[in-house]
Amino acid sequence: MKSREIHLTQHFTGKVKPEYFEMTEIDLPDPGEGEIQVKNAWLSVDPYMRGRMIGIKTYVDPFQVGGPMEGGAVGQVVKSKADGFAEGDWVMSMHGWREGWTAPAAGITKIDANLLPAEAYLGVAGMPGMTAYIGLKRMIDLKPGESLWMSAGAGAVGTAGIQFAKAMGANVVATAGGAEKTAFCTEIGADAVVDYKAVDDLAAAVKTAAKPLGGVDAYYENVGGDHLQAALDVIKPFGRFAVCGMIARYNDDTPLPGPTNLTQIVAKKLTLRGFIVSDHFDLQGQFIQDLSGWMMAGKVKTRDTIYEGVEKTPEAFMGLFEGKNIGKMLVKI
Amino acid sequence: MKSREIHLTQHFTGKVKPEYFEMTEIDLPDPGEGEIQVKNAWLSVDPYMRGRMIGIKTYVDPFQVGGPMEGGAVGQVVKSKADGFAEGDWVMSMHGWREGWTAPAAGITKIDANLLPAEAYLGVAGMPGMTAYIGLKRMIDLKPGESLWMSAGAGAVGTAGIQFAKAMGANVVATAGGAEKTAFCTEIGADAVVDYKAVDDLAAAVKTAAKPLGGVDAYYENVGGDHLQAALDVIKPFGRFAVCGMIARYNDDTPLPGPTNLTQIVAKKLTLRGFIVSDHFDLQGQFIQDLSGWMMAGKVKTRDTIYEGVEKTPEAFMGLFEGKNIGKMLVKI
Repeated sequence: MKSREIHLTQHFTGKVKPEYFEMTEIDLPDPGEGEIQVKNAWLSVDPYMRGRMIGIKTYVDPFQVGGPMEGGAVGQVVKSKADGFAEGDWVMSMHGWREGWTAPAAGITKIDANLLPAEAYLGVAGMPGMTAYIGLKRMIDLKPGESLWMSAGAGAVGTAGIQFAKAMGANVVATAGGAEKTAFCTEIGADAVVDYKAVDDLAAAVKTAAKPLGGVDAYYENVGGDHLQAALDVIKPFGRFAVCGMIARYNDDTPLPGPTNLTQIVAKKLTLRGFIVSDHFDLQGQFIQDLSGWMMAGKVKTRDTIYEGVEKTPEAFMGLFEGKNIGKMLVKI
Repeated sequence: MKSREIHLTQHFTGKVKPEYFEMTEIDLPDPGEGEIQVKNAWLSVDPYMRGRMIGIKTYVDPFQVGGPMEGGAVGQVVKSKADGFAEGDWVMSMHGWREGWTAPAAGITKIDANLLPAEAYLGVAGMPGMTAYIGLKRMIDLKPGESLWMSAGAGAVGTAGIQFAKAMGANVVATAGGAEKTAFCTEIGADAVVDYKAVDDLAAAVKTAAKPLGGVDAYYENVGGDHLQAALDVIKPFGRFAVCGMIARYNDDTPLPGPTNLTQIVAKKLTLRGFIVSDHFDLQGQFIQDLSGWMMAGKVKTRDTIYEGVEKTPEAFMGLFEGKNIGKMLVKI
């Protein structure tokens, strides 16, 4: 089996450009003892991948230049020489950005594509969903009746977070950019929505939107920059921040200054907690249990933005930073 | 009894200037039923008071223009018409910035000036000590063997914090400005000290100083600005920040931008907790118990910077922002 795969041509800072990626085609070797060969069906692109392109070790190692990229992927086993894996089985792996792969079966997760669509394991039931869940449950400890501001409300984590927060009995103010995204936030249950691209004063707009909900008790940070500044202004005393990401900052050529109002951390006695999903897998069982219940009760909808063909993976990835996705950004092979 | 007292002439932002204060002399009324008359012996000036001079409600009400200022003070009862208070009793009150006062005894705390010097109740055994304790115990949850970076290590909170952290079995890197202050940090037990005024790259200097201690696990924030930027750079993954104050920012005319490296909150999975001592009085019993033990074991020294005469109170207060104090800044009447 042949497989086309995307390689990184160099490490870089600043804006992501197409020339940083190249596609090559390889012949997949037959699986050896304990290995499987898999044809990927869906590839994930996620903002965190940006950090691995800089070439500096952060919390994960950088991508290797000239080698295949890594990322979440789901696909079906084509050939197996590993116990417990049969042709046709659906699996989830980090062998993404490629059409197929041959690798050891150890560490590869089998998924049930009858229970949920296979691609959901890259979205609401996968890393973005778990990220939303941990932020709300463990970082913020969101309580029924409280009000959450979810930033990037139409993104993969945001759409999961809005619906999970509602399912937990909380109120949600969502922010998103543009009419289509804000409409989607409303559709999935946000009590109030602000189009950050359409307002001059984000803090004032969120404050007004949150007023009927009793103000903002907690903020889910996906954006950084002006959103963080506004959140520090808007949040109520003792507010909690789940700091999941700051996508507005990832492509800066040179680091930009932070908010001018950080003294609010003291004045309002705020707690800010940064986190990475992989440190919290102990909550996975509880997440799956809660999510199953919410899905059966019809409380969680999903929507994906889909690019077709492995060659579109860099374009899909770059689209994340231009806000081109509603819901989870996926590449269909 | 006559009393001279300091009034605020206007609310203001920016640098503190002498003309914002004026002194007047009043005749203290005799105490009515349930009241006491007290001659203050020691007045406290503290950085948090700056926030009450802006004229905007933050976590405490602003000082009233034209009325006597408030602040921690200890003194002795001169006349009493209140049960439980006798002439000569030592008391602690918020009726500071003045030589004496007549007011209801309700809410006034009697102190034991035999156990500790009366002025210690404004320092290590008072609000600054309690602030240091809460930051270490509750915000950071400092563990034996961990390493703490204490900023403003020669200040009232810093000197308490260095000694408490050592008494808790932790290691301490202290930062302070100038040779006298850094020498004092060493004298009271800091394992390593950096003179932030003498280095070009604060982060690199602290990193080097902390290396023999295994790096920095937790940061006690009193300063803001370049200190916060350096702390985000230096701190180890899962680091905890107790955010007590940002004195470098209090006198800004216009708010200045924050650090350029806030994405470290995510990358290093940091927790930042802002706090105000008054929300944590439930820990006071435990604080007094721990402090008594440490003092009896000779683990806590104090040092004060003393201005004499109520008329010097504004100068003492302004001195806080110029780093003129080592240990607690006090005014002796």
